[in-house]
Amino acid sequence: MTTLAALGNLTSKLREIHHLRDASAVLSWDQETYMPAGSGAIRADQLATLQTFAHNQFISSEMESLLSSFLDIETGTILPAHQASLDEPAHALLRETWQDFFRAKKLPSSFVTELGRECSIAQQVWVEARKTNDFHRFLPNLERLVRLKQKEADYLGYTDSPYNALLDTYEPGSTVAQLRPLFATLRTHLIRLLDQIRNSPIQPNTDLLTQSFDTGKQLDFGRLVLKQMSYDFQRGRLDLSAHPFTTSFHPTDVRVTTRVFEHDMPSCLFSCIHEGGHGLYEQGLPTQQYGTPLGETISLGIHESQSRLWENSVGRSQSFWQYFYPKLQEFFPTQLGSVPADEFYLAINRVEPSLIRVEADELTYNLHVMVRFEIELDIIEGRVQVEDLPEMWNAKIQEYLGVTPPNDAEGVLQDVHWSFGAFGYFPTYTLGNLYAAMLFHQAKKDMVDLEQNIGQGNFLPLKNWLHDRVYRWGRQYSANDLIQRITGQALTLEPFIQDLEEKFGNLYKFPTTSSPQAST
Amino acid sequence: MTTLAALGNLTSKLREIHHLRDASAVLSWDQETYMPAGSGAIRADQLATLQTFAHNQFISSEMESLLSSFLDIETGTILPAHQASLDEPAHALLRETWQDFFRAKKLPSSFVTELGRECSIAQQVWVEARKTNDFHRFLPNLERLVRLKQKEADYLGYTDSPYNALLDTYEPGSTVAQLRPLFATLRTHLIRLLDQIRNSPIQPNTDLLTQSFDTGKQLDFGRLVLKQMSYDFQRGRLDLSAHPFTTSFHPTDVRVTTRVFEHDMPSCLFSCIHEGGHGLYEQGLPTQQYGTPLGETISLGIHESQSRLWENSVGRSQSFWQYFYPKLQEFFPTQLGSVPADEFYLAINRVEPSLIRVEADELTYNLHVMVRFEIELDIIEGRVQVEDLPEMWNAKIQEYLGVTPPNDAEGVLQDVHWSFGAFGYFPTYTLGNLYAAMLFHQAKKDMVDLEQNIGQGNFLPLKNWLHDRVYRWGRQYSANDLIQRITGQALTLEPFIQDLEEKFGNLYKFPTTSSPQAST
Repeated sequence: MTTLAALGNLTSKLREIHHLRDASAVLSWDQETYMPAGSGAIRADQLATLQTFAHNQFISSEMESLLSSFLDIETGTILPAHQASLDEPAHALLRETWQDFFRAKKLPSSFVTELGRECSIAQQVWVEARKTNDFHRFLPNLERLVRLKQKEADYLGYTDSPYNALLDTYEPGSTVAQLRPLFATLRTHLIRLLDQIRNSPIQPNTDLLTQSFDTGKQLDFGRLVLKQMSYDFQRGRLDLSAHPFTTSFHPTDVRVTTRVFEHDMPSCLFSCIHEGGHGLYEQGLPTQQYGTPLGETISLGIHESQSRLWENSVGRSQSFWQYFYPKLQEFFPTQLGSVPADEFYLAINRVEPSLIRVEADELTYNLHVMVRFEIELDIIEGRVQVEDLPEMWNAKIQEYLGVTPPNDAEGVLQDVHWSFGAFGYFPTYTLGNLYAAMLFHQAKKDMVDLEQNIGQGNFLPLKNWLHDRVYRWGRQYSANDLIQRITGQALTLEPFIQDLEEKFGNLYKFPTTSSPQAST
Repeated sequence: MTTLAALGNLTSKLREIHHLRDASAVLSWDQETYMPAGSGAIRADQLATLQTFAHNQFISSEMESLLSSFLDIETGTILPAHQASLDEPAHALLRETWQDFFRAKKLPSSFVTELGRECSIAQQVWVEARKTNDFHRFLPNLERLVRLKQKEADYLGYTDSPYNALLDTYEPGSTVAQLRPLFATLRTHLIRLLDQIRNSPIQPNTDLLTQSFDTGKQLDFGRLVLKQMSYDFQRGRLDLSAHPFTTSFHPTDVRVTTRVFEHDMPSCLFSCIHEGGHGLYEQGLPTQQYGTPLGETISLGIHESQSRLWENSVGRSQSFWQYFYPKLQEFFPTQLGSVPADEFYLAINRVEPSLIRVEADELTYNLHVMVRFEIELDIIEGRVQVEDLPEMWNAKIQEYLGVTPPNDAEGVLQDVHWSFGAFGYFPTYTLGNLYAAMLFHQAKKDMVDLEQNIGQGNFLPLKNWLHDRVYRWGRQYSANDLIQRITGQALTLEPFIQDLEEKFGNLYKFPTTSSPQAST
């Protein structure tokens, strides 16, 4: 009997609670993919009930007593009797479960119900508001959500900023104090690179990507890439949704979605690769730990590192297209048959400031994140009114990217996140980019033939490397500890900047500067 | 304030419990439509947990105390203080809720979990067993399920036969003592009609229905018919599944499924109409009563009467095809352009004993039901071993229909029902046929221009008639009371036999006999 088995009753209870969360996730997936338009209101109620039940079960006296037999419920300290007898995974399981429990205990169940219902409704209002380009339609919902999230921060408690409490949900351990200087340094580098790109004589031709591409064939190609990445369709699906996403109900049922536009081929393609990266992580989690923190992903930053690694480090690399471009040409001979691989590679890597985050290139993407981070801070810390958001948005986008949204649909209304109360989420995208570069650098060090394998369409060594170092651990290590274990370093932006320098220096033919100063 | 509003706390609780059941239904729908093949095991666990939670909530002390403020919890009698102040709907709501509660209380929660999990697993084993034509693969699961259903009957209690306890789940008030003579009389009539049809010189040409019909177009036509029936796609969907079914998560989210075969055009067509009839019932339930018995369907027999009325009384009628046949010919000009309407009408009404219930004509269908009813009785009453089922099945099918299944996939393994423990379900199909004929006869009496309207594709008057008499009442009346209210008669097989006599007398050109003796 392993010591984990000693936690049998606790893990049974955790699994049961997880089933309720899985059901929530199925209902949410359904809402985004197949739910009839007329049933939004009841779905909001159903989700709120499920979330409340899961919450109440999680903070129940039964859970408290299960935990109390192993640890001090006030401090989380493992009881002396168990200190030595439990192994490292068991310690980690208890530590993470207690943290979740302690945090959840702070939220009244009526608050959880209210927040769940508001999020579900607001999300549906947001869809309509974006469609009709009508921020004021969404305004009352957003105002309520902001108030609720401020209340949530108060319930949870924080030091320095209420934003830290929210950030902690998505990226445990991350703080405003850490992100501000990191983003500032990153911004300097990005602006410098952007200037060099702007001054380059090279002008990628992206018209080739906006020809007419049959949407069915685009999906088929997306599926082909996912299969080659070894995303397992026996334990997953690819569907369509307004916003691409990945969801998991268990490692045997991990679903990704994409969207497909006839005149924007990269959209479907790269969202398939991106979500595929998320999907591989979820499919690779240890099933025997299902329901416990050891069967869960660490943080959104680490999750995003998986999608970004596949999307950018792999999917926008020369090696990747060495293998896939002839196949893509076979799918679309009229459109791409006479386009040289180099031209295509340049086109999919074009850097240009633009309005929409999810369509942004891998460099300016982070400037979009910074805009949102600053706005969220101002909103949650109460310095700015929700009704002033459109104006503030447009000003910041102009400041960071030099472009101005012609309307709110392409401005402040573009992202789904705030509509489900996800304040503090955006920074994890940039953290994901930084982690991804760190991991890919290490993978190249560990496997000298990595790029050669990618060039031959052999992605298994990379997937196995990730499985061994990331997937299989669940939440046994924190994000910081995991990255440190794998790369020997704390979070740093050096590899990310280095990659950008190299790739865009080559593509846009500007001299690469000396290695940037890491700043974490 | 209506007196129903006085039940506010009770209905809130009932709604909350219903959300859990809705979630179960979404997960089940997903399992049958889109779930990846590899995630069957976890889905079984998730469903079992949801069902257990719903069950435990329903029999909780909170529910008991909510009910006890209105009625005597041991007898269900409304407390004197409320007798006069509550109106009829409130009385009905309390009566039905108490009956459900009293029944559910008898089932231990561990039993509900076990049964839920067994059903979910058995269903998946059944799919494989049918696919590989391997009854022995399914045998251990079926044996466990039969034992569990016998145990369920013991928990619930019964008079005469444990089968009555199971029957009562699906058709409250129905008993073996009622069904035996009813089915015996029905059988006599069916056999007599079948003989007349066998001896008729008319031989419908059904080859025209097994030509190659594009499956996409078949689905489009099914959708067209559903829309014309006023099935609301804003509050519903049509998807594919192995077995067609209807499921509802709320009147604003009612989903139907069908299946489609290139060389069997009627399969998709009539399952769309059939499930559409179920769907209209569910979409027509009063939303303001959602979650309470007044927002629920009465019984499976009444439910089936709605699908059969649309499928057979409407969908296999001359008036229906007067409107739709030209449209069908437009969909399939090569296949049907030169086929006269009469020939098509004869083909879709061909009577011929066959192996598969769901593909059977409207006459022999009921013989299939009787076979299952007798087998179920023997199994549940313990006179027959589960392992002897294939042999027994084949003998009975030969006896009733004069055909012998070449294998178990087309024999004892053909139906999904037993795999989810639904013993006592089949008889409701024939009850549905009888109710449907009674209702349609009454509708024709109430609306002299009914068939003329159908012939013009105007189904609204019929839908509105059904809404007014059936849908909007939820479970305010029992099946018997509702039928009595609408038709002025108790259950009788006369209208059903009369319809068969008339239709097949005309089609197969045999003299119609005098009106049959009703026997209920």
